[in-house]
Amino acid sequence: MTNSNLRNIKLLLQYDGSNYSGWQIQHNGTTIQGLLTAALSQIHGQPVKLYGAGRTDAGVHALGQVANFFTNKNLTPPQWQKALNGQLPPDIRVVSVAEVSASFHARFSAIGKHYRYQLCTSATVSPFDYRYYYHYPYALNLAAMEQAASYLLGTHDFAAFATATNKDATVRTLHQLTIISPHPDRLCFQLQGNGFLRYMVRTIVGTLLEVGRQQRPAASIPEILQSQDRRQAGPTAPPQGLFLVAVEYPAESLS
Amino acid sequence: MTNSNLRNIKLLLQYDGSNYSGWQIQHNGTTIQGLLTAALSQIHGQPVKLYGAGRTDAGVHALGQVANFFTNKNLTPPQWQKALNGQLPPDIRVVSVAEVSASFHARFSAIGKHYRYQLCTSATVSPFDYRYYYHYPYALNLAAMEQAASYLLGTHDFAAFATATNKDATVRTLHQLTIISPHPDRLCFQLQGNGFLRYMVRTIVGTLLEVGRQQRPAASIPEILQSQDRRQAGPTAPPQGLFLVAVEYPAESLS
Repeated sequence: MTNSNLRNIKLLLQYDGSNYSGWQIQHNGTTIQGLLTAALSQIHGQPVKLYGAGRTDAGVHALGQVANFFTNKNLTPPQWQKALNGQLPPDIRVVSVAEVSASFHARFSAIGKHYRYQLCTSATVSPFDYRYYYHYPYALNLAAMEQAASYLLGTHDFAAFATATNKDATVRTLHQLTIISPHPDRLCFQLQGNGFLRYMVRTIVGTLLEVGRQQRPAASIPEILQSQDRRQAGPTAPPQGLFLVAVEYPAESLS
Repeated sequence: MTNSNLRNIKLLLQYDGSNYSGWQIQHNGTTIQGLLTAALSQIHGQPVKLYGAGRTDAGVHALGQVANFFTNKNLTPPQWQKALNGQLPPDIRVVSVAEVSASFHARFSAIGKHYRYQLCTSATVSPFDYRYYYHYPYALNLAAMEQAASYLLGTHDFAAFATATNKDATVRTLHQLTIISPHPDRLCFQLQGNGFLRYMVRTIVGTLLEVGRQQRPAASIPEILQSQDRRQAGPTAPPQGLFLVAVEYPAESLS
């Protein structure tokens, strides 16, 4: 299928990433994109390409992943939702469907993303929470973490907080990095920016946790950024605490 | 080991029953009692018997299951908790441990139990909820369900609401059966009684849902009780919505 005279369908998706090898289709391992593509291809009787906004890694969850595909089918949004959910496992759900303009691309049209990272600091984690919280049973200095976070706000080269990539593509703007404690033994990092490099949220969290445990000073953050050297930052926090919360688009791209 | 001169240890347990063949140890299938017994036997270097308060069925969860065992070991409650949780999968957790009198028996000392049954009436169930809610996307007449529930309160022969068992052992007292809607598309049944027969909560829920959908009148409940015939009641609601919330004991049995 070519994209001319086809409808462009945008999907809002939620998934529990616990049982998947991430978003992006691959030869080994079951992926969210792979299952969605298989469902779409079955409905169309031919291969269908699906474009996702964020390539979430293995074990990472989504509350608001966005994807799009082009189709010659005349289904209504509720019919698409029903047809896809009928073929997907219950830990992947299409929560809404909309027809958008031909120029909309889930990844390239995105102008911002929201992520959340959750951790649990109590001695034991509930059987109902362990899939969604990083278990980190340590006392944390929240004020030091907040100071460290303040150095990351704004536009920086985040090469030190990501896996090795092309140097000139590692500048991002972080608009929000707040740390809230919704419960005495829970901590939640909320991040919003114009884009995130691979492992960037988890490396920021891993580094801020070292600050929280007084293993490195808050004031070391500017030096880490400056170094552009991944080895200077802290460890990559594990995937199960991470949620892609929402993807932002300019209003005109959706009409 | 005989029980004389042994310590009697009481465990408070939580588990996500999704991946288990229920509480009770069996030859085929992994059970919660089986995993706990294996952990205890490994710690002791010999078989240890574990007594559970409620034999939750396959797929049923627990927020407050209670069990006890006798031991010659001198571990403190925090040491027991750590030793057991270290050997258990993350979907089964020992949340507290206490040494109790030799006469305490998790099942025979119990004087009451609390259960909760959760359902979701929206068109789709979130990937984070499907393990814990029965998906029932229908309009329900709550007032009719509440009227039906009122007939079940008190002391009755609940044979019609349980799997076939010895007739003279099917009288139970139901002290509470409330239906709350914590969210527009969620319904939660809360039950408290002196004891529950096998499938009793799920059969009560399945029957009340038929009343909610106007498939049977609320006033039919007394006749169903009277019949003592399981075929007169509604279907057994599926296990994933059910939680054993708490087990009650007389204060003196715990000292």
